[in-house]
Order: sequence, then C-alpha cells, then structure tokens
Amino acid sequence: MADDDWREDCAPRRVLDLFSSKWTSMILHVLDAQHGGTARTGVLQRSLPGISKKMLTQTLREMEASGLVARRVHGTVPPAVDYTLTPLGHRFVEPLELLYGWARDNADALDAFAARRGKG
Amino acid sequence: MADDDWREDCAPRRVLDLFSSKWTSMILHVLDAQHGGTARTGVLQRSLPGISKKMLTQTLREMEASGLVARRVHGTVPPAVDYTLTPLGHRFVEPLELLYGWARDNADALDAFAARRGKG
Repeated sequence: MADDDWREDCAPRRVLDLFSSKWTSMILHVLDAQHGGTARTGVLQRSLPGISKKMLTQTLREMEASGLVARRVHGTVPPAVDYTLTPLGHRFVEPLELLYGWARDNADALDAFAARRGKG
Repeated sequence: MADDDWREDCAPRRVLDLFSSKWTSMILHVLDAQHGGTARTGVLQRSLPGISKKMLTQTLREMEASGLVARRVHGTVPPAVDYTLTPLGHRFVEPLELLYGWARDNADALDAFAARRGKG
C-alpha cells in the first residue's frame, strides 16, 4: 500500500529533520564551499551573517555528536578550535549542492513562491 | 569577500524556504514517486498521513501559484480536481530524490542526529 510505503520510507522525514535545524545545512555548505572542509569557529561565524555565537556552538556540538563534523582542539595559547567535514558530512554536501544549483537556476520562480507564502 | 558571496548567493536560503513549508517537499515527492506526477486531492491526502485537508489545500494553492504544480478541474459531477507536477516541479524532484537516497544510505547516522537534537 502506498501509505505504508511512505511511512516505511523515512528519508523525506530525515531530510526535513536536517533542514529544520536552520543552520546545519548552511554550516555544511559554508565549510565545503568557502573553507575547503575545515574552519575555526570564529571564521565560521563571520561566514554566516546572522548566527549568534551560542547558536553556532550549539549547532556544531549537535553536528559533531551525530558525526557530520569533527572537532579538533589545537594546543596553542589560547587554544584554537576548528571543525572539519567528516565523510558523512561530505556525502551530504554533494546532493545539497545539486539542490542549490537547481535553486540558482530557478531563483525567480522560488522567489515568487516565497513571496506568495509570505502573503498567505 | 566571503560574507558578501554568501549574502549574494541566496540558493541556500531559497532551499530552506522551500523546506520550511513542511509539506511542499513531501507533496512533490509523493506526486512523483507514487502517482506518476498527477493525483487527485483525496488521493494525495491518503498518501500523506498526518496532513489535514485544509493544510493540503493551502499548500497546493501556494505550490500552484508559484508554478510547482498545475491544477485541473474535470467537468464531472461532482467536479474532480487533480494536480500535476509542472516542469519546474519535476526539476526540483531530481536533486530531492538524490538527497533522499543519501538519507536512506545514512539512516542510522541521521536518526542519531535527530535523537541528539531532541535531547538538546
């Protein structure tokens, strides 16, 4: 049955979960597209206008706990912390960038969609 | 500058917008994967456990207004209404299904991520 197929196949829900944490996909994108996979916390914050330090730290901790990024502390004074995409994080970036390519190709239609929703 | 690049490139925000309407991606997925691109409203509702008729109608109206689906009214008694994926909707489905494929391949890691967020 169609209903049961859909219930069993939780991929759409898993993807929604990921996007419901607004910054997760942004951080993965910025890490990959701007910083070659590794960046310090401060650099990430400057790359993401609008994110607070608290929200950034919290999101990075969640992403570390679930294996999307790896945290590394350097023994400098003061200690420097950076985050690197894991293989799992890398595998997410690929389809994500395809989706972003589609969004760029169809920017006008998507803006119309956003405007319409804003009104609704 | 990296910050400006990121501001200019609104693709990530556009994609987030689309996913922030929880049911939009689900409807596109179900239309494509289960119904070959066209389905009546009632059939869609049965394919999407948890959606109310009001929410389904509202989301379909928004999707129609932005060109993701086309609405067709058949002159039967009572009139039957169905929705079909437009070319724009079809182009969204392709990267979306790649993302879902990734989510299926990494289901365990994503479930750990969701559980961690639930606790946080």
